[in-house]
Amino acid sequence: MVVIRALEERILAQGKVLPGEILKVGDFLNQQIDPNLLMQMGDEIASLYKDAGVTKILTIESSGIAVAFAAGYSMGVPVVFAKKHASINLSDDIITSQVFSYTHQKTYDIVVSNEYIRPEDTVLIVDDFLAKGNALQGLIDIITKAGAKLAGAAIAIEKGFQGGGDRFRAKGVRVESLAIIESMTDDSLTFRDNG
Amino acid sequence: MVVIRALEERILAQGKVLPGEILKVGDFLNQQIDPNLLMQMGDEIASLYKDAGVTKILTIESSGIAVAFAAGYSMGVPVVFAKKHASINLSDDIITSQVFSYTHQKTYDIVVSNEYIRPEDTVLIVDDFLAKGNALQGLIDIITKAGAKLAGAAIAIEKGFQGGGDRFRAKGVRVESLAIIESMTDDSLTFRDNG
Repeated sequence: MVVIRALEERILAQGKVLPGEILKVGDFLNQQIDPNLLMQMGDEIASLYKDAGVTKILTIESSGIAVAFAAGYSMGVPVVFAKKHASINLSDDIITSQVFSYTHQKTYDIVVSNEYIRPEDTVLIVDDFLAKGNALQGLIDIITKAGAKLAGAAIAIEKGFQGGGDRFRAKGVRVESLAIIESMTDDSLTFRDNG
Repeated sequence: MVVIRALEERILAQGKVLPGEILKVGDFLNQQIDPNLLMQMGDEIASLYKDAGVTKILTIESSGIAVAFAAGYSMGVPVVFAKKHASINLSDDIITSQVFSYTHQKTYDIVVSNEYIRPEDTVLIVDDFLAKGNALQGLIDIITKAGAKLAGAAIAIEKGFQGGGDRFRAKGVRVESLAIIESMTDDSLTFRDNG
């Protein structure tokens, strides 16, 4: 749990609250990356899901890639990232879903080649943030469409007060977040007790 | 140099040549990621640049992030990734350049917050591919505009036959590519002797 304390301390020290309930953690997570902290977070995710039979990690570009990579390295499994729009580098054999982004106020397609998520896979979703849960729902859709098994989700920072994580937990989806923010204002930030 | 052989073997085994001189290596580098291979590539990059005084790694979303993260972890320095368009999560204090993508046949802005590349930094650019060199030029522009020092570039796969890498080398920029493809057709792929 040392890494959880370290992550919470970094959020308190370097996180900036912007209008629209946005938490900017660009100093260490999603514009500038602290590889050492993220590798520890990856080890923690691997530990949480060590008995889940995970064969693949699925994330979404761009800011999920680093923490997913760290978890994949620690678990010894490949990491697949969904792209946010079709690319001519992808084959026709793709699986898609749609995600509404509150940050950007638009809906975008997410796309994975069906070569990389197979029916025999047990997939762990890893992402940097969980707020309303739209990206997570899109990634679960892709795993369902692929006919694969969902192990659960591992999230670096969950905005607990936006309810997405608890909505999935209530449906029986395993959601493990390293830091859960219970409330957030310009001046203060409190965490849910999380081990 | 074991990792260079391993990378070349993976390109030969899993790379697919698509129309437009595109090499698809989605199986291990830029859609699905093999964390173990990439971590070895990061160690090799760290070894190549161990005496260069690197303080930051700069890459570009999305497919550069994993190899840049691996190099940053091995070197113990932060990794910054340029975004391909302005985001409302970024402050106004940004550094921008423009990049033309042959793959997508369009010009896009790349953006980094000036908090993360500082005049006192010595920056290593890390990316998954180098072809004509447009992305590399954009990243060099950003380092120049930030007033920082360029250590050089480390690339996973260079398409040597497209000339970008040699153009920068002729200008005195240090460019180290783990695999350099000298020629590429549907049926055959040859590498430059690269250690």
